[in-house]
Amino acid sequence: MGGDHAPQAVVEGALLASRRGLPVLLVGDPARIEPLLPKGQRLAVRPALEALDERPTVAQVRRRKGSPVRQTLAAVRQGEACAAVSVGHTGAAMASALFELGRLPGVDRPAVTRAVPRADGGQLVILDLGANVDCKPGQLAQFAVMGHCFAAHVLDLEGPRVGLLSNGDEEGKGNELVRAAVPLLAELDLDYVGQVEPTAAFRGACEVLVCDGFVGNIMLKTVEATADVVGRLLKEQIISTPKAQVGAWLMRGAFQRFRSRTDWSRFGGAMLLGVDGVVLVGHGRSDPEAVAATIQHAHHCAQQALAERLAVAIGAALGASPDAA
Amino acid sequence: MGGDHAPQAVVEGALLASRRGLPVLLVGDPARIEPLLPKGQRLAVRPALEALDERPTVAQVRRRKGSPVRQTLAAVRQGEACAAVSVGHTGAAMASALFELGRLPGVDRPAVTRAVPRADGGQLVILDLGANVDCKPGQLAQFAVMGHCFAAHVLDLEGPRVGLLSNGDEEGKGNELVRAAVPLLAELDLDYVGQVEPTAAFRGACEVLVCDGFVGNIMLKTVEATADVVGRLLKEQIISTPKAQVGAWLMRGAFQRFRSRTDWSRFGGAMLLGVDGVVLVGHGRSDPEAVAATIQHAHHCAQQALAERLAVAIGAALGASPDAA
Repeated sequence: MGGDHAPQAVVEGALLASRRGLPVLLVGDPARIEPLLPKGQRLAVRPALEALDERPTVAQVRRRKGSPVRQTLAAVRQGEACAAVSVGHTGAAMASALFELGRLPGVDRPAVTRAVPRADGGQLVILDLGANVDCKPGQLAQFAVMGHCFAAHVLDLEGPRVGLLSNGDEEGKGNELVRAAVPLLAELDLDYVGQVEPTAAFRGACEVLVCDGFVGNIMLKTVEATADVVGRLLKEQIISTPKAQVGAWLMRGAFQRFRSRTDWSRFGGAMLLGVDGVVLVGHGRSDPEAVAATIQHAHHCAQQALAERLAVAIGAALGASPDAA
Repeated sequence: MGGDHAPQAVVEGALLASRRGLPVLLVGDPARIEPLLPKGQRLAVRPALEALDERPTVAQVRRRKGSPVRQTLAAVRQGEACAAVSVGHTGAAMASALFELGRLPGVDRPAVTRAVPRADGGQLVILDLGANVDCKPGQLAQFAVMGHCFAAHVLDLEGPRVGLLSNGDEEGKGNELVRAAVPLLAELDLDYVGQVEPTAAFRGACEVLVCDGFVGNIMLKTVEATADVVGRLLKEQIISTPKAQVGAWLMRGAFQRFRSRTDWSRFGGAMLLGVDGVVLVGHGRSDPEAVAATIQHAHHCAQQALAERLAVAIGAALGASPDAA
């Protein structure tokens, strides 16, 4: 029931995923969902009628156990679903995941992560993207372990390198939090490459980039904003002359291929790492294709037993480096 | 003597600025500078022979008073120059400015700022861009006052609006620092529009964006990195088919106009705000044209009596809101 085009886009996305062979359980108001299902095409619907505000507080999510997002996570807890997908409010999904599934042992605070395209064609996993605006150094070390596990087992990247986001790669660079986290990350049993600037990270200096949720959120939104600025200013120049318009028409295939490689909605949503289950949050603007991609990604994560692998990785890291807690 | 192409690019840039009617004083090693001056074209050279490391410490900048960057700032202190320009190490320029010129009264820590292009064609002044990685709330309030003054009097923007960079615009969003700064910025006698996300800022929600130097530096470098990713991936697609290549050839004028509107080297360098004088730092990669643009920008700032105006603005803001200190 969440997202900008709910429930239409969600239902259509679920139908797409279902046609691709994935069993989907819809959670929400049957009276609004069922009219959207084509005749003869059945999808299971778990009723959840209690509405949440557009920007619900944690207290509200805690109280309204019958809300669609709580009931989606309840379905995972009860084993009715192997993973949860939402295109609604990220905070509501995180709160619901914590109430229904809880955290993995050893995780202080779950993180939000996703992969974005690098300049060299690779992928860059960034975390935390906004769940924890004020972090302690030990939390950044936990993010490193979780991000590494996600990159290795979900994205199938070989020997992912972990970097700590900083304003410079020299020793002593970084704010207080980063400087305090450096020794903790260096102690971990993974390929830690030190402090990494955004420029270097996007050129391929690492596969996993660790930061606090405030900085990570600003960084992700700055990437989106910059792509938006580039697109608008370039378009303005293109439509200014007939010659450029013809050029753009000839380049439309290249533009399309570029878009399909950089369109984040195709990357399958953001992942909540550190909760005891697989939970993905897609963009509120998700169209049916993006919803289907997020469902497929969630299914893949469940197949990879991501939560179990994370629990093992966190346990091993804490054993090797108790300070990181 | 600083920057990636020193001293060649700096000397050629100075010659360009000189031909455009600006009196330029070069500071550095005469034996390396003078052979680069064409016959008959004289530029004043102030000798400064003491070398600094590529990444000098503050202690080194303090000790080596005969270094080119210290001597450049000394020329400003002594009234020999109205403004200082460097394309070397930003930290060395900041330290030199503090040792030679000192801070404006009421300023705790100077900030680095520059304007970047917005999607709507406007300009966005961001500060701090890296001078202060760990800030106190009162420093953000001072940045707001200085950024407002810079936008109004140097960029000639009418009634610039000031926003506080945040991960969301709702009340209560932001990290600890941002939440503590909100009431201080609201108290200031300027058009404060509240917490602003990167996306909104680049679309025109404000003209001045205030943040701590760690986040600001990450944001600026993320803009550069994203533009780099977009450019590389787009180029990859363009060269992949002959049709797209022809299209790109027809669009080359549009690409050039786009580049000239977004090329930051043409925006005249970053400004050190809050020191008692006009100091600009250009990109280390600056070519002669970028060096000349930075010199012209510095001259414009001096003409606008920027330091004096900042002193007045800071004084007035501190009078109105002593808590901001």
